[in-house]
Amino acid sequence: MAEAIRTLAIRGAPLIGVAAAYGVALSLQHDASGESLDRACEELRSARPTAVNLEHAIERVRSAVRSSESAAATALLAAQGLEREEERASDVMAAHGAELLSGVRTVLTHCNTGALAAPGRGTALAVIAELHARGPLKVLVTESRPLLQGARLTAFELAQLGIPHELIVDGAAAGIIASGEVDAVVVGCDRVAANGDVANKVGTYGLALAANAAGIPFLVVGPTSTIDPLCPTGDDIVIEEREAEEIRSAGPTVLAPADTPCRNPAFDVTPADLVTALVTEGGVRTRA
Amino acid sequence: MAEAIRTLAIRGAPLIGVAAAYGVALSLQHDASGESLDRACEELRSARPTAVNLEHAIERVRSAVRSSESAAATALLAAQGLEREEERASDVMAAHGAELLSGVRTVLTHCNTGALAAPGRGTALAVIAELHARGPLKVLVTESRPLLQGARLTAFELAQLGIPHELIVDGAAAGIIASGEVDAVVVGCDRVAANGDVANKVGTYGLALAANAAGIPFLVVGPTSTIDPLCPTGDDIVIEEREAEEIRSAGPTVLAPADTPCRNPAFDVTPADLVTALVTEGGVRTRA
Repeated sequence: MAEAIRTLAIRGAPLIGVAAAYGVALSLQHDASGESLDRACEELRSARPTAVNLEHAIERVRSAVRSSESAAATALLAAQGLEREEERASDVMAAHGAELLSGVRTVLTHCNTGALAAPGRGTALAVIAELHARGPLKVLVTESRPLLQGARLTAFELAQLGIPHELIVDGAAAGIIASGEVDAVVVGCDRVAANGDVANKVGTYGLALAANAAGIPFLVVGPTSTIDPLCPTGDDIVIEEREAEEIRSAGPTVLAPADTPCRNPAFDVTPADLVTALVTEGGVRTRA
Repeated sequence: MAEAIRTLAIRGAPLIGVAAAYGVALSLQHDASGESLDRACEELRSARPTAVNLEHAIERVRSAVRSSESAAATALLAAQGLEREEERASDVMAAHGAELLSGVRTVLTHCNTGALAAPGRGTALAVIAELHARGPLKVLVTESRPLLQGARLTAFELAQLGIPHELIVDGAAAGIIASGEVDAVVVGCDRVAANGDVANKVGTYGLALAANAAGIPFLVVGPTSTIDPLCPTGDDIVIEEREAEEIRSAGPTVLAPADTPCRNPAFDVTPADLVTALVTEGGVRTRA
């Protein structure tokens, strides 16, 4: 399970949280000792650094097991409980977000935040699906380099959901937003600091700048499990740096000269003052 | 020649201007009639819509020919004259730009603006090469999707020039600029309107927003042949829309579901008030 999280076979902050919870439960099926539990928690926690859901989920299962006599069964129940909660959270966020964006006809989104990234209908994409259920909607989706989660996953999910959409390169978003045709930007999040700063897929901060310059809402959607009250500000969030090869090639296609040095941060931080509203299942936090 | 410009075998605003000038001269080698001249000018002019250099270069050769008896020889001389001028312009821009950025240690650039995009040493990349000649410099270069001119061409040119560099995805630029490690952003341009609005490679506007948010200089470098005094503002610049397939695939690698609708503007417009300085061979225009 740690390998699946590390290699992004499973990705999306809420989903890697739930997956890690099941990972702890799985480890106890084989060996229910405290040592095995510690090892599993440590390996899963170190799989990726940025999404705090991972840590929250692991701690939740670990605490449940501590106070229990049948560790394996308890861990499984705790993981299942977390999954159910996140599924319900998705529906509540969808309703809150759609309410906030009532009347919006064109939204722009980034990366992948649907059923492939989170339990239930997802986070930002759940809001988009709910908006589409309530009235006509068009979605502009960024390809989200380097791993193209927007092109590969969100374009696929929007097609499955029957929602009209257009794919754009990441660099095109700001200009299209400035042209006036986008009513709102809606994204997910990987970790939210106590002050409201948001770590999300690299490229999110640029979208927030463009949305604010154009005077349109910039909505961040995520379950409360993504909020890290122990992290004071965005400066305290560890940003994962990934391999250069993700930039230098796409499948068998070479995109840059061999050995070109690369910087590959997977996330960036959007300051709270650029976030119009943070939508969670517990409510909506709007900008002061 | 029109085909080479259309398919981007030749690209970069100053270079397609010079290439078009030679294209007119070439056409007159075979048939020096007025009809042939008109046809060549029209075909070359319609090859791409955004860079005004194309139009300026064609008009220059055409005017030279009009007042001459030996059209073919005159056209060739006019094209060669333009090329020499643009080469000299490159050196003058390099000196102006390096002066403005004196002391800068890390610059970020976008797309490709070196010897592969313009006569001489290029535009923005000529400034970067000159800065590097004057002191230690590191360059962050965006890959510049969809056609990856940054990854394929600028990374190559920087390596050839021995200038330390790191390649990043377009979405990573804003966050890295916000982190404080970039001292200036330097880009080229495809058309500058009379009011100073700048059309350049898609993604440029987002970089200008990020540079301004971080309080660092945003420099635009281009020869006066890129300025269009007949175009009042950026709203009047025609932005070329290119094919969806440029986004949906990279060589043989499929990047998105087949038939995903795409929007593929090749350029965007940066308002003049985000441009710290426009550097031309005729001088530097700084923000009011």
